[in-house]
Amino acid sequence: MKRKIVIIGGVAGGATAAARLRRLNEEDEIVIFEKGEYISFANCGLPYHIGGVIQERDNLLLETVGGMAKKFNIGIKNFSEVVKINRGKKTITVKHVLTGATTEESYDKLIISTGAKPIKPAITGIEEAENVFTLRNIPDMDKIKAYITEHQVKRATVIGGGFIGLEMMENLWELGIHVSLIEMSDQVMAPIDFEMAQSVHAHIDMHNVNLILNDGVKAFENNGSKVRLNSGKVLNTDMTILSIGVTPENDLAIESDLKTGFRGAIVVNDQLQTSDPDIFAVGDVIEVTDFVNGKPTVVPLAWPANRQGRLVADHLNGMDVRYKGTMGTSVAKVFELTVAAAGNNEKTLNGSDTDYKVVHIHPNSHAGYYPGASPLDIKLLFGLDGKILGVQAVGMEGVEKRVDVIATAMKLGATVYDLPDLELAYAPPYSSAKDPANIAGYVASNMLEGTIDTFQWHEVDGLIAKGAFLLDVREDFELATGVLGNAYTIPLGDIRARMSELPKDKTIYVFCQVGHRGYNAARILMQNGFTVKNLDGGYKTYKQAKT
Amino acid sequence: MKRKIVIIGGVAGGATAAARLRRLNEEDEIVIFEKGEYISFANCGLPYHIGGVIQERDNLLLETVGGMAKKFNIGIKNFSEVVKINRGKKTITVKHVLTGATTEESYDKLIISTGAKPIKPAITGIEEAENVFTLRNIPDMDKIKAYITEHQVKRATVIGGGFIGLEMMENLWELGIHVSLIEMSDQVMAPIDFEMAQSVHAHIDMHNVNLILNDGVKAFENNGSKVRLNSGKVLNTDMTILSIGVTPENDLAIESDLKTGFRGAIVVNDQLQTSDPDIFAVGDVIEVTDFVNGKPTVVPLAWPANRQGRLVADHLNGMDVRYKGTMGTSVAKVFELTVAAAGNNEKTLNGSDTDYKVVHIHPNSHAGYYPGASPLDIKLLFGLDGKILGVQAVGMEGVEKRVDVIATAMKLGATVYDLPDLELAYAPPYSSAKDPANIAGYVASNMLEGTIDTFQWHEVDGLIAKGAFLLDVREDFELATGVLGNAYTIPLGDIRARMSELPKDKTIYVFCQVGHRGYNAARILMQNGFTVKNLDGGYKTYKQAKT
Ligand SMILES: Cc1cc2nc3c(=O)[nH]c(=O)nc-3n(C[C@H](O)[C@H](O)[C@H](O)COP(=O)(O)OP(=O)(O)OC[C@H]3O[C@@H](n4cnc5c(N)ncnc54)[C@H](O)[C@@H]3O)c2cc1C
Ligand SMILES: Cc1cc2nc3c(=O)[nH]c(=O)nc-3n(C[C@H](O)[C@H](O)[C@H](O)COP(=O)(O)OP(=O)(O)OC[C@H]3O[C@@H](n4cnc5c(N)ncnc54)[C@H](O)[C@@H]3O)c2cc1C
Ligand SMILES: CC(C)(COP(=O)(O)OP(=O)(O)OC[C@H]1O[C@@H](n2cnc3c(N)ncnc32)[C@H](O)[C@@H]1OP(=O)(O)O)[C@@H](O)C(=O)NCCC(=O)NCCS
Ligand SMILES: CC(C)(COP(=O)(O)OP(=O)(O)OC[C@H]1O[C@@H](n2cnc3c(N)ncnc32)[C@H](O)[C@@H]1OP(=O)(O)O)[C@@H](O)C(=O)NCCC(=O)NCCS
Repeated sequence: MKRKIVIIGGVAGGATAAARLRRLNEEDEIVIFEKGEYISFANCGLPYHIGGVIQERDNLLLETVGGMAKKFNIGIKNFSEVVKINRGKKTITVKHVLTGATTEESYDKLIISTGAKPIKPAITGIEEAENVFTLRNIPDMDKIKAYITEHQVKRATVIGGGFIGLEMMENLWELGIHVSLIEMSDQVMAPIDFEMAQSVHAHIDMHNVNLILNDGVKAFENNGSKVRLNSGKVLNTDMTILSIGVTPENDLAIESDLKTGFRGAIVVNDQLQTSDPDIFAVGDVIEVTDFVNGKPTVVPLAWPANRQGRLVADHLNGMDVRYKGTMGTSVAKVFELTVAAAGNNEKTLNGSDTDYKVVHIHPNSHAGYYPGASPLDIKLLFGLDGKILGVQAVGMEGVEKRVDVIATAMKLGATVYDLPDLELAYAPPYSSAKDPANIAGYVASNMLEGTIDTFQWHEVDGLIAKGAFLLDVREDFELATGVLGNAYTIPLGDIRARMSELPKDKTIYVFCQVGHRGYNAARILMQNGFTVKNLDGGYKTYKQAKT
Repeated sequence: MKRKIVIIGGVAGGATAAARLRRLNEEDEIVIFEKGEYISFANCGLPYHIGGVIQERDNLLLETVGGMAKKFNIGIKNFSEVVKINRGKKTITVKHVLTGATTEESYDKLIISTGAKPIKPAITGIEEAENVFTLRNIPDMDKIKAYITEHQVKRATVIGGGFIGLEMMENLWELGIHVSLIEMSDQVMAPIDFEMAQSVHAHIDMHNVNLILNDGVKAFENNGSKVRLNSGKVLNTDMTILSIGVTPENDLAIESDLKTGFRGAIVVNDQLQTSDPDIFAVGDVIEVTDFVNGKPTVVPLAWPANRQGRLVADHLNGMDVRYKGTMGTSVAKVFELTVAAAGNNEKTLNGSDTDYKVVHIHPNSHAGYYPGASPLDIKLLFGLDGKILGVQAVGMEGVEKRVDVIATAMKLGATVYDLPDLELAYAPPYSSAKDPANIAGYVASNMLEGTIDTFQWHEVDGLIAKGAFLLDVREDFELATGVLGNAYTIPLGDIRARMSELPKDKTIYVFCQVGHRGYNAARILMQNGFTVKNLDGGYKTYKQAKT
């Protein structure tokens, strides 16, 4: 039985659904309505074309309207904005963007993949400012690129330190433009926690970007050539990129009374069906279930959009499929750094009633004796039952590999006890005989099994203030990099011989550079009747957080 | 209750067991006997010091005898070869290697981690040849390095194309030495299958190495300055590295009547206990259970040795732990290529009664539009129930990442149906919105679900000979790279319009460059009543295999 399946939005979710629908069914009529000129383009590549890293604009157009129409025998109407869903009649009203003319189209099944649009608040002066841009699609990109060239932009301001903000920062920098990055919170890259973001901040500073945290835009002045911040600071700028987040493109849903939820995203069941059984929705416009904590959230990323587009096509062709929720695995390149994460971070967990623990480790990206190894910062978050709740990693090499491995483990329901058993590829240029993912598992299981008790970087200052007994087990020559309070010092190798110098009546807060020797020292002391806690992540995590 | 735990062999398995034993227990007496001078060295780094890639010899010594003894309060006896286990008395007989003197030492628990030694068959002339070397430890490395310098080696022969052989090939090449690599079988890198190894062969050729497959050494002549091959070929060489594999160092076990199995490796239960309940064994010297097929095997790699060393220490301290078997995840750098694998390959599966299927894909390492992307060759092997049996990958970037992800999935019992659901980190410099691991899962599930039927590269020639109907759906300009028989040609975009040109009475064997368009073409045709099979991996896999 031939059906007419109509798709609103022709990029990640929409185009993917269309392609799979056709592969499963040659009969159905499939029509895509896209309000823009282009379908199926690489949103994620836009910043890099601005920076000249991706040189060919055409490379961003993965399918053309004509090409896709022919290959998949699909009706593709670009410049066609769907302005209304007439659920009773099962039709949509379409406005031709260039002419303004409207038509009505029927559907048997409707798929909404309208995405999310950049948030653009009514900041004073924003309307007059002609140099303030957002970046979502090819025309946005073209505009930014043209403005840079025509106005010979030398100074730019990026507002918002999320993925897109950071990518724009990097790409403007690539063009030799001096960039100021303004971020309202105390850190960039919301998916990772503060102490992890601190290395990113240091790295941004190193590139001579003017990074301003804890501040926001109050007004655009002089047609946008001045940006006034909440703090009173005023920046002179040739242009501004506003990248403070996106919001579901939900007008159609609201207007036609489809159920919406978290931040206005469309509510769907695990078969991507909206509150109207003939209407489905996928991608940035929908509310998803957080894979880790089961709560509703939004995750505007390409993998979920693609996955959901595929699944909705399967479902519409009678296959029994379910979308399992989103854990938000993500990665960004920030100059030479890679920053990646999956699952929940501490900010999220603190807002919930889940009891959790964390470990910070700083293993080498590959065997330390093989050239080019660089340290990774890895943070693992897990429940008291061992369930892995989240992972974050920052470094130069092998960063997203470890996050991918742990995200895979998470998706398959693994606990931290499973991580030491992961048999990962090892040769000196790639890893160590115990991969960082194994080490994370070892350290976490030791905590849960009571082999070690730890304290966190954010407890250190309080402990020093209280006069706690801190024991530094690093070698003398390392102390030049910094010390904690007036910690007592005994290098690891001397602990057994000098144990009598230590107090039995109070907790010994032991630490070393990264936590590894501190752990070995703690084990010796614990077995000799001392009460010991080891500084998780060592002096390094503390110092990163505090710098 | 203080025990005396004696460990034979002080490197990967032995030193790891010792360290963990001490962390868990300060009381036990722990003694390591090591016949060589060094403990705890980086075996895996040896080839790279020879090549000058790792410059500092000291960097290979992870722990010194003195350092480890002090840090872990362990008795470490180097130059001490254990020559006999007196199980009745629970003692060992130790020969001091430098003096020849023997002593007897008691044990409560004994751990054997004697490793595996290079195979050195009695080839004619091998005894007289002073320029034939094997590489296992620091002295071996020193000897090779010294010989190269002293004799100004210009031409070298490496016998055996396994990990160590390939690493030696690369490192000798790094020194500007002309290398011949001789391999008895039709391919290097046994963990991957022939058609996958072919890109490695091409890459080796490109570096001007004289690669000789299907040939072995018959004799060393003229004190090793001539290497005579089975084929009759004679190579002039300044030195030869013999790296045709390793064999468990099992003399002690045999002599003391411990049960041995596969290739003479020591049989242990899943708690690493030998047939003598007070004797444990770990590392290269033991037989392990193949994680995939459950059969006994040997896997002489560093991860298993480290993992088993840790577990035996846990077990001896009353923890309920099990070794779950080995899947042989491995990786090697071969010049600019990375070659990685996990689980069973086709050679292994063909020798078993498991029904399996394979897919070959050639996705980009990261988004094609972002600079630096390079194609991966990935092969996935899976059972008819979807169970993942093995994975192989070859390429320049992100190779071992995909193998690690799939090895993780395998360890956690995943099927190919789980792979599309893996939520992996995506931004253009790192991957695609559907990661290659997702794609492998999609393609495999399509096969199992009957969405597509495929044929393999090795069936092509037979099909051509039989006069089968081959349909090439590539564009005209691509045909210059090569064609299959006299395949009929219809580019994918024209299939629907030109379907009437195709036969309904016989199977259409469709193909494209990598299998992707062939799949889309096949779906169109299948739904129009044609019987179709798609060439798995496309023309590319066929051509790689046949070149
Ligand atoms: C600059 C940038 C960089 C990014 N980088 C990454 C990255 O590195 N990694 C990652 O995972 N994700 C990234 N993303 C996010 C990713 O692109 C999105 O998650 C994904 O494209 C969402 O797919 P979608 O189908 O929901 O929406 P979209 O791909 O945005 O497609 C929605 C389409 O619907 C159209 N539309 C909307 N309303 C209507 C209507 N009423 N009628 C007709 N058409 C309509 C829009 O014009 C739009 O083309 C990036 C996004 C941007 C903008
Ligand atoms: C050149 C080279 C490169 C390698 N590269 C890699 C790689 O990239 N990735 C990977 O995973 N693996 C690699 N390996 C393999 C890895 O090193 C081994 O799997 C691992 O070291 C095995 O650990 P083990 O404890 O069983 O044996 P070993 O580490 O070999 O230690 C055994 C020790 O026991 C001693 N011994 C033996 N018999 C006696 C006795 N009777 N009395 C006293 N002492 C004794 C030996 O002298 C030896 O030092 C490589 C090995 C070599 C040689
Ligand atoms: C271009 C686009 C229309 C392609 O859709 P698609 O055909 O479903 O996706 P792909 O090209 O990745 O191909 C995947 C399909 O080919 C199959 N395939 C891929 N490689 C294959 C191979 N070597 N052999 C056989 N089949 C293969 C997969 O199984 C899958 O088919 P299935 O869904 O029927 O299982 C869509 O991905 C798109 O519009 N992308 C751009 C927008 C976007 O994603 N933006 C965000 C990221 S920048
Ligand atoms: C050097 C050697 C003796 C070290 O043994 P080890 O102490 O068990 O191993 P590592 O140094 O990797 O440290 C791992 C331990 O430290 C802990 N650890 C690591 N990083 C930590 C951190 N940041 N914080 C807290 N604990 C940490 C781990 O949990 C683990 O302890 P556990 O086993 O009690 O859980 C041993 O690995 C060895 O001899 N290696 C060389 C030989 C070899 O492996 N060759 C083959 C490869 S080249």
